[in-house]
Amino acid sequence: MIDRNIIKEKFMALQDHICSGLESLDGQGQFRQEIWKRDGGGGGKTRVINSRHIEKGGVNFSAVEGEMPSNIANALGLGANRFFATGVSIVLHAENPLVPIIHMNVRYFETDSGVWWFGGGIDLTPHFIVDSDAIQFHRRLKQVCDKHDSTFYREFKTWADDYFYVKHRKETRGIGGIFYDRLSESRGTKEQLLEFSLDVGHAFVPAYSDVFMQYYEMPYTDREKEWQLHRRGRYAEFNLVLDKGTKFGLDTDGNIESILMSLPPECKWTYKFVPNKREQITLDLLKKEIDWINHK
Amino acid sequence: MIDRNIIKEKFMALQDHICSGLESLDGQGQFRQEIWKRDGGGGGKTRVINSRHIEKGGVNFSAVEGEMPSNIANALGLGANRFFATGVSIVLHAENPLVPIIHMNVRYFETDSGVWWFGGGIDLTPHFIVDSDAIQFHRRLKQVCDKHDSTFYREFKTWADDYFYVKHRKETRGIGGIFYDRLSESRGTKEQLLEFSLDVGHAFVPAYSDVFMQYYEMPYTDREKEWQLHRRGRYAEFNLVLDKGTKFGLDTDGNIESILMSLPPECKWTYKFVPNKREQITLDLLKKEIDWINHK
Repeated sequence: MIDRNIIKEKFMALQDHICSGLESLDGQGQFRQEIWKRDGGGGGKTRVINSRHIEKGGVNFSAVEGEMPSNIANALGLGANRFFATGVSIVLHAENPLVPIIHMNVRYFETDSGVWWFGGGIDLTPHFIVDSDAIQFHRRLKQVCDKHDSTFYREFKTWADDYFYVKHRKETRGIGGIFYDRLSESRGTKEQLLEFSLDVGHAFVPAYSDVFMQYYEMPYTDREKEWQLHRRGRYAEFNLVLDKGTKFGLDTDGNIESILMSLPPECKWTYKFVPNKREQITLDLLKKEIDWINHK
Repeated sequence: MIDRNIIKEKFMALQDHICSGLESLDGQGQFRQEIWKRDGGGGGKTRVINSRHIEKGGVNFSAVEGEMPSNIANALGLGANRFFATGVSIVLHAENPLVPIIHMNVRYFETDSGVWWFGGGIDLTPHFIVDSDAIQFHRRLKQVCDKHDSTFYREFKTWADDYFYVKHRKETRGIGGIFYDRLSESRGTKEQLLEFSLDVGHAFVPAYSDVFMQYYEMPYTDREKEWQLHRRGRYAEFNLVLDKGTKFGLDTDGNIESILMSLPPECKWTYKFVPNKREQITLDLLKKEIDWINHK
């Protein structure tokens, strides 16, 4: 029978695995680590990279525990209780505008009264959507899901479409991916759902490699950089206005630098920025319910 | 007896007055205007400037009316009713990091059942706080307030300290100013409160002139620009996470380009950016309850 410590150890190992994978991809940059402790109990390891190719990136591990603040307990529909939460969370902003922004998160939550669940997801935000890349990304995620449950991909792909949606812009954040939350007994044993989460985690480096290796050294124009900075503005809007993890962190007075590490290194907002034809093609694809698996 | 149409006309004239004042200050840039209509009733005139000195600026007028959405009625503690709202709203981001960001807003709201109130404010966000400028800015606002009510300045200065506070960073947005909301019968007649609002509006150009004319042509370093971009990141955080006007606009599916025009033209987020000594002096002044009027 696995317990919270095993899950924590596995997530910590996942962080190591991903960081060394990314250092190999990048070839030059190295993560620097900062260890932090939480007043109420637990802490984390924040790892950041700022290299020639990855302009800003963070791979964060945390494992925290303690008394659950009553507003959080209420929001989660739980009684007052002690809780434990651990997870790995990643956002990478590459320097080259042809390389997409990528995000991944796996997390586990439990209370001392025996409630537990897993959550997570992985999604891709290309500044320029390339159909073949989007297809490959979604097929990879489907493969990970199918290994565990044939219903997972469809369900979690739709969940991602709904979650990563910038309501006030009426556009999705990118091409989506998978998102899931509160997976518990009804969806598998703790062992099974941990294995699934670890497989999602292990899909991260190959999934990023697919796009990073293809584009990171490709020459780009000033206009492409300009467009990237504007798309990053939308990313910041999503994270600051809509992202539940960010809101949770801000509301609970969390480690602010770690919470907001997902924000772009640099971005722009221009009143009524006019996209060119190629940029418009990407905008037209920022919508829910695109079936990338069967896309022609 | 004044009515909504008179207030609307006065606010529209205020927009004209401020735009021509700013064009004179800038000497080069000109506002371009876009007129928009709201599906439910009313509309507005968005005026934007993008000159060599004012990198991004908007002076917006709107007057909207119609059925009040029930979630808004509830949030305001009002019954279902038709409403009317008009206002002028400004944010200016100068190119030169030595020139502060400035914001001003005056607004009037009423329902068909006879409820009415005025709200507004003006606040300054210097990238580098200069004591003498902060003192001058607050003295100017106090003068405007004192002309109408000797209690206004203290009360509205404190209100601004509380409102323009970036909770998750534990710092104020800038040096504050004045902020007020729901001023109604108990604080003056409609005529008196309109006059007060117009005086706040008329203080805008001189208040901005004080700092703009002093710094807009001053040479600056790359580091000063870098710091400006990071401070603008905080400004974006306030507007996207905390500003009630922005939230209202996003929740009610308003004119998104007008709502988010307040966002900086360009900004940066760096993990644990380390301020230099001079920058730290500004950070140390980003707190509530500084008595700028009597500051030595």
